[in-house]
Amino acid sequence: MAKEVTRRSENYSQWYNDLVVKADLAEQSAVRGCMVIKPYGYAIWEKMQHILDGMFKKTGVKNAYFPLFIPKSFLSREAEHVEGFAKECAVVTHHRLMTNPDGPGVVVDPTAKLEEELVVRPTSETIIWSTYKNWIHSWRDLPVLCNQWCNVVRWEMRTRLFLRTAEFLWQEGHTAHATAEEAYQEAERMVHVYADFARNVMAMPVVVGHKSPGERFAGALDTLTIEALMQDGKALQAGTSHFLGQNFAKSFDVQFTNKEGKQEYVWASSWGVSTRLMGALIMAHGDDNGLVLPPALAPIQVVMVPIYKTPEERAAILAKMDEVKKALEASGHSVEIDDRDTLRPGFKFAEWELKGVPVRLAIGPRDLEGGTVEVHRRDTLEKVVEPLEGLDARIAELLDAIQKNIYEKAMAFRDASVRKVDTWEEFKTEIEKGGFLLCHWDGTAETEAKIQEETKATIRCIPVDSYLCEEEGTCVYSGKPSHQRVLFARSY
Amino acid sequence: MAKEVTRRSENYSQWYNDLVVKADLAEQSAVRGCMVIKPYGYAIWEKMQHILDGMFKKTGVKNAYFPLFIPKSFLSREAEHVEGFAKECAVVTHHRLMTNPDGPGVVVDPTAKLEEELVVRPTSETIIWSTYKNWIHSWRDLPVLCNQWCNVVRWEMRTRLFLRTAEFLWQEGHTAHATAEEAYQEAERMVHVYADFARNVMAMPVVVGHKSPGERFAGALDTLTIEALMQDGKALQAGTSHFLGQNFAKSFDVQFTNKEGKQEYVWASSWGVSTRLMGALIMAHGDDNGLVLPPALAPIQVVMVPIYKTPEERAAILAKMDEVKKALEASGHSVEIDDRDTLRPGFKFAEWELKGVPVRLAIGPRDLEGGTVEVHRRDTLEKVVEPLEGLDARIAELLDAIQKNIYEKAMAFRDASVRKVDTWEEFKTEIEKGGFLLCHWDGTAETEAKIQEETKATIRCIPVDSYLCEEEGTCVYSGKPSHQRVLFARSY
Repeated sequence: MAKEVTRRSENYSQWYNDLVVKADLAEQSAVRGCMVIKPYGYAIWEKMQHILDGMFKKTGVKNAYFPLFIPKSFLSREAEHVEGFAKECAVVTHHRLMTNPDGPGVVVDPTAKLEEELVVRPTSETIIWSTYKNWIHSWRDLPVLCNQWCNVVRWEMRTRLFLRTAEFLWQEGHTAHATAEEAYQEAERMVHVYADFARNVMAMPVVVGHKSPGERFAGALDTLTIEALMQDGKALQAGTSHFLGQNFAKSFDVQFTNKEGKQEYVWASSWGVSTRLMGALIMAHGDDNGLVLPPALAPIQVVMVPIYKTPEERAAILAKMDEVKKALEASGHSVEIDDRDTLRPGFKFAEWELKGVPVRLAIGPRDLEGGTVEVHRRDTLEKVVEPLEGLDARIAELLDAIQKNIYEKAMAFRDASVRKVDTWEEFKTEIEKGGFLLCHWDGTAETEAKIQEETKATIRCIPVDSYLCEEEGTCVYSGKPSHQRVLFARSY
Repeated sequence: MAKEVTRRSENYSQWYNDLVVKADLAEQSAVRGCMVIKPYGYAIWEKMQHILDGMFKKTGVKNAYFPLFIPKSFLSREAEHVEGFAKECAVVTHHRLMTNPDGPGVVVDPTAKLEEELVVRPTSETIIWSTYKNWIHSWRDLPVLCNQWCNVVRWEMRTRLFLRTAEFLWQEGHTAHATAEEAYQEAERMVHVYADFARNVMAMPVVVGHKSPGERFAGALDTLTIEALMQDGKALQAGTSHFLGQNFAKSFDVQFTNKEGKQEYVWASSWGVSTRLMGALIMAHGDDNGLVLPPALAPIQVVMVPIYKTPEERAAILAKMDEVKKALEASGHSVEIDDRDTLRPGFKFAEWELKGVPVRLAIGPRDLEGGTVEVHRRDTLEKVVEPLEGLDARIAELLDAIQKNIYEKAMAFRDASVRKVDTWEEFKTEIEKGGFLLCHWDGTAETEAKIQEETKATIRCIPVDSYLCEEEGTCVYSGKPSHQRVLFARSY
């Protein structure tokens, strides 16, 4: 096999990198921290976009587009926001290059300095709320439900493909409402859209919950999150939805006349998921042979590999495969025939396993004679020989079964990794084993910080499923009284 | 009517701006030269994207994503390219802001200066060819057919919404081939995809042709273009496709081993269309009442306005409209019921005309009784009362008829605006009337520049339809011999 993948047990981090690079998902670019998303990786992201976009639109959200650049002064308007985002960002200071007077190449033209520097958007609350000021005057203008699909830049010092990159792709929803309740409901609605997408499309279990005050988005009154568990036992924040109160409306003076004729500040939510979901997808399901893609997101759901010795056999098998392909495509499946003549079947098998294609079909001369096909499923690596007759309907069932199985496998792993822990000694031992620890917490930022300092574990969320967490107890660290358990883990 | 639109005959430029802003397509943002694309405008752009994307993919093109930033030194590698693009661009020089030590707000942190400045991509040939170097080694790796949908920035001094903005959205295809022929064919294929899209989706006639050497893309050996004619008689370049030869392969040292085992530089094409198409769409079809959208791109194809006096009438009519809407949606049409209770029907009629919705249906109490509906078409402003029975099939036909009529109307206008001109005196008179002038040109950059200097007209293209231009004659300016007519016009 040409492309070897490091085993998870050997070096999980290297395994992840191998999958990203060797399955042709993404690679480092010539620009520090910025990635190139390759066609195979981008095709998965496109599927994510397409499905999420439909889910957003069903709730009444419309897409729009706001500028890439944010005037520096806008960031300062919301006090917490500037703390959270101004620190590491790409700053545009000039608008022209010129021929280097002292040598080859080009240099920045010192006469083309901008009056006010522009920041490449790390998130768009400020520029969007400066726009909403023109859109919103009366209660009749509300709600405003906008989303944009775009690139953002956060100057991260340590980057990892998909998980943390200087530039990444995402969607950011920004909504404006007449009441606090409506804005809060919107934030709740969207975190559940994300959870639904994670579970039913990505086949990835998630816990929905509130972030602790210390982990909230800069400028939010409440942050809701979906938290997934990766196979190495670390948590990954896969999407967040924020109730922003009136903070941005006040910073950008966005008021409306309510039904009683009074001026009020507008209420806001914002919510986003990013190409980080690609990292989650890889780590939630991949195995030592490569990616395992849920059929709902696989750019190629069925790959066909011909097995032949002579050109005549090849032609006959490819002709049969063409028939099968047409039938499968007519049922809405995406199918590819791997007719490359310079590679052995074994090499192709390994490559398609690496790329996570859910179902592989192989047809050889004997199959052609007997009207059979070898069906291999990626999730279990099982192989059976079946009649070609009626294949179409069975493939549809098989893809459903694979989608379900991938989810159940991840769910079983997740469930086995959630433990209730009640003493500090136990916490310190258990956190080393990875997974989610459900513990009592006294609700103070001080305890939260201490726990992180001593164990690198953070509060991933305060789960919204009350049966998981609402009970009386004492803080696992301070021993003070607590009314709920929260979810601790080490995280990406 | 609340939103008045300037008449075209009064002030064409103001008419254009009125349509963009009052039909809720786009507006200026707080960042100089950058626009906000509003939901209604973005919905049209999304339709364009969706259809074009399908057309690209049918030819084998795959989407990918490359970094927003380009190292300054990359721009210098291709000599002509740097001349064309380095001059006006957004330059990132720092990666951090800090609290202002001398006052309020934030300032650029002088210690966070980048070692090498980054330019926000004005186009991506350089960063993409630096990536292709890793992807292409052998003839087996070719062709590479990638496209990306993204934002680009060119620091324009004078901007106009959609037509010329500092930031705009576009797609850029970048292909790599083993031979010059293949790369050239790709450039040709894509300009014809653009022409097909312009004609059959945008309902906008275009002339396909080659740019004169002086108007080529910076770094191209040949630039193909589609040129459309706006209603004020000015031409608009609506899409370009470039044969880049081996220029970028040489600048970034991208070689491959050919079938004979020899090293060769790779051949390239690139091609793009942008949100400028939105400007073309508006100016090709709009009238003094507002936008006229071709049904293929209309976010709302059919709008329904209820006419009532009492709440009972309102309820009964809306119930009937719901039925009609469901039937129309089942046939794949996008439909909206304007049930706003605070606005008069006349106001609503004007608003939907302004927004260019192809078909408007009105139902009043008498219609409800008689089983009729008033059908209004936006392109001709004709109104007829028809039976509700069988409406569904008739609407499908009507939308087809409107799409066709909009194209034919634009085509008739374009055809009436193309004139053959053979003397310089005539040229100077005729160019004042607008439209396309088909003239002989001696093929020199000098003559081209003189003509532009004296009349502001440029060579829009050398049409590929040879019957239009291949004939012997003498240059309209210099009197020197010429073997072809070329298309002159003033342009956007």
